[in-house]
Amino acid sequence: MGKLARGVALIGAGMSKFGAFPDKTGRELFVEAYIDARNSVDNGIDNKDIEAMFLGNFSSDIFEGQGHNGPIMADWVGLIPKPVTRTEGACASSGVAIRAGITAVASGLHEIVCISGVEKMTDLPTAGVTDALAAASDVSYEFPVGATFPGLYATIATAHMKKYGTTIKQLRTIGVKNHKNGALNSKAQFSVTIKDLMEKRIKKLKDKEETVPDWKDEYDFLEDPSANPVIAWPLRLYDCSPITDGAAVAFLAAEEVAKKYTDTPLHIIGSGQGSVQPALHDRADFTSILAAREASNMAYKMAGVKPEDIQVAEVHDCFTIAEIIATEDLRFFKPGEGGKAAEEGITARDGQKPVNTSGGLKSKGHPVGASGAGQVVEIWKQLRGEAGPRQVPGVELGLTHNVGGTGGTCAVHIYRR
Amino acid sequence: MGKLARGVALIGAGMSKFGAFPDKTGRELFVEAYIDARNSVDNGIDNKDIEAMFLGNFSSDIFEGQGHNGPIMADWVGLIPKPVTRTEGACASSGVAIRAGITAVASGLHEIVCISGVEKMTDLPTAGVTDALAAASDVSYEFPVGATFPGLYATIATAHMKKYGTTIKQLRTIGVKNHKNGALNSKAQFSVTIKDLMEKRIKKLKDKEETVPDWKDEYDFLEDPSANPVIAWPLRLYDCSPITDGAAVAFLAAEEVAKKYTDTPLHIIGSGQGSVQPALHDRADFTSILAAREASNMAYKMAGVKPEDIQVAEVHDCFTIAEIIATEDLRFFKPGEGGKAAEEGITARDGQKPVNTSGGLKSKGHPVGASGAGQVVEIWKQLRGEAGPRQVPGVELGLTHNVGGTGGTCAVHIYRR
Repeated sequence: MGKLARGVALIGAGMSKFGAFPDKTGRELFVEAYIDARNSVDNGIDNKDIEAMFLGNFSSDIFEGQGHNGPIMADWVGLIPKPVTRTEGACASSGVAIRAGITAVASGLHEIVCISGVEKMTDLPTAGVTDALAAASDVSYEFPVGATFPGLYATIATAHMKKYGTTIKQLRTIGVKNHKNGALNSKAQFSVTIKDLMEKRIKKLKDKEETVPDWKDEYDFLEDPSANPVIAWPLRLYDCSPITDGAAVAFLAAEEVAKKYTDTPLHIIGSGQGSVQPALHDRADFTSILAAREASNMAYKMAGVKPEDIQVAEVHDCFTIAEIIATEDLRFFKPGEGGKAAEEGITARDGQKPVNTSGGLKSKGHPVGASGAGQVVEIWKQLRGEAGPRQVPGVELGLTHNVGGTGGTCAVHIYRR
Repeated sequence: MGKLARGVALIGAGMSKFGAFPDKTGRELFVEAYIDARNSVDNGIDNKDIEAMFLGNFSSDIFEGQGHNGPIMADWVGLIPKPVTRTEGACASSGVAIRAGITAVASGLHEIVCISGVEKMTDLPTAGVTDALAAASDVSYEFPVGATFPGLYATIATAHMKKYGTTIKQLRTIGVKNHKNGALNSKAQFSVTIKDLMEKRIKKLKDKEETVPDWKDEYDFLEDPSANPVIAWPLRLYDCSPITDGAAVAFLAAEEVAKKYTDTPLHIIGSGQGSVQPALHDRADFTSILAAREASNMAYKMAGVKPEDIQVAEVHDCFTIAEIIATEDLRFFKPGEGGKAAEEGITARDGQKPVNTSGGLKSKGHPVGASGAGQVVEIWKQLRGEAGPRQVPGVELGLTHNVGGTGGTCAVHIYRR
């Protein structure tokens, strides 16, 4: 495992609004993200400068009946006839696109490439989306016995609770925290705190002159099945990321040319990727993801930094338990201590190790193939001091962690201002 | 557009048998190909040496209900927890995997990577496969008006006939030639000549004491609808590549380490990739594919060779007209002269410019995501003098040309012994 032949920098990143957009196609959302990314490049960038594109997408095949959407997206943003390759690693599809883009630039073949992701999920009914996502599990074994992702992550959660004593309250803390961050992100699908949701519900019940439950606080609210039904115990609705339409785009440049586009590029100093058997039953332990440990070790080693050096991180919180495990696999905390750390506020925006300042997948939304590229947008803003009301002061070293399925694929990247 | 930071060599390549295998899964075919590829490495190769994998696959999502098959294939061949990325560009899915593998090695990140492709198509009924493949067209415009690939390529064929006077006989020549080559390839799905097919049919009719049509030769046979029905005029059954299950695998190494594995590596001296709008109606001309011209120009330039230097080529003959256009886009022949060149035997195995000595997609089979990697296997054998009865003597410079959809994606690679 070697060293990049030349350095690669991030020179711009942008995204569409994440949400449910029945009137928009994936193509339109992609154009929205592309324009936002182009606008983020300080000194501007022309399409003629962009030599190739990598598009993360999990399954427009199933979601929209459209395979081969690389050249379609390239066409809609004016990049024909340049090379475009779709990459897929389930919900890490655009995380692996970052790595493909880095190697394309470092190899010497290209000076500037576009890395991106898109997913249009809401055309299907909810049950159809659940089935489509289940295609990212091992369908020979897991899907036929009725296991879809909430069930698989619930299994992971109970294993973590049993082995380490992780509590329900700790799970809920992740959702509360991430909604608190997402409430400050206008691109988020659910730009609202859990507390606000509770108060809205109280107002609605009062308006209808119905009985208002005696909720002491948002945690109490989250244990009420009328407000937050169980999806797969111990996971309730607000432990699960939503079904989302969205796209995100970023531009990578060889270090030699990056300064032409911005005085403040971010240097991509670490890249790691790993795999594990998609089927849970093939693994010795459910409480940690081998692919994530592998990817993060690789990225830390390449970057020459330690977990404690990372100042801000976007991690893959498709379910609340996933964030707890992510912070352990990334070695921010010891195995079994991720839940406690969240509960103590360490991963809050004003804590020692802010995680998912964007709102994470939970609040910002999870258009699966675009989520990894969406994480890049937040790190771009945070490390450049452009994150507005959710800015963490003075951060210069950030990380993205993007997982596919229950961990079959994981990509980790480290960025330095 | 730059120059590779370091050279990349092909050190081994192998494939499963191509065909229809109702009793085998995509995973099993992949293992078969992987073992064949490992066995092709002269001095042997261990899994520990292989640092990452790129898997071309068009849509196991639709064909097998399995997305996220990168880590599944990696698991079945023992490459967990290494990075594995699925690449997709319709029927060029493994052609673009080659390029991804090249950049991964040239970037310095990896010394040796596996590039590969797999598709398991025959689990669906034929109409289902036709619909699945149509997902590689522009489904917002082309599929709703009933256009599937035979119809789209028939449109391309009639445009070529009208513009250049390309004849029906020239189309049929491609099929006759490729079956003649494929008859010498034991891995081919239809390892039989058209003449043999005709003679078998004559024997069968005689055995049943039915009337035997007065077929003068195989070309006459191919115009008889009872033997070769029209699929979409002017394309008949034997103008269309079959529906196929199969997998192919190759190993790429940094030039510095290649010699450890074989005294006769192939040097990958050219890589090109291009895109065009998937929808035919967006193009000014149907008789040439912009993506292929772009990809081949890029590859020739990088390799520092000219079209006339290429001694053996595997091109994307998903339909007979596609091979004619491929040989023009690659500038082997002037626009409009590809059909005539085939008719004159120039592209025959013993001609000046042998094309599809493996049998091509037409006879060898077209497991779409594996076809590009399958082409690599033939070039590996030809340039090393290991192609047995179909060996072209003394060839040292070869090319692969892999197209997705009606040309939305194209990847071209050039190899020197």
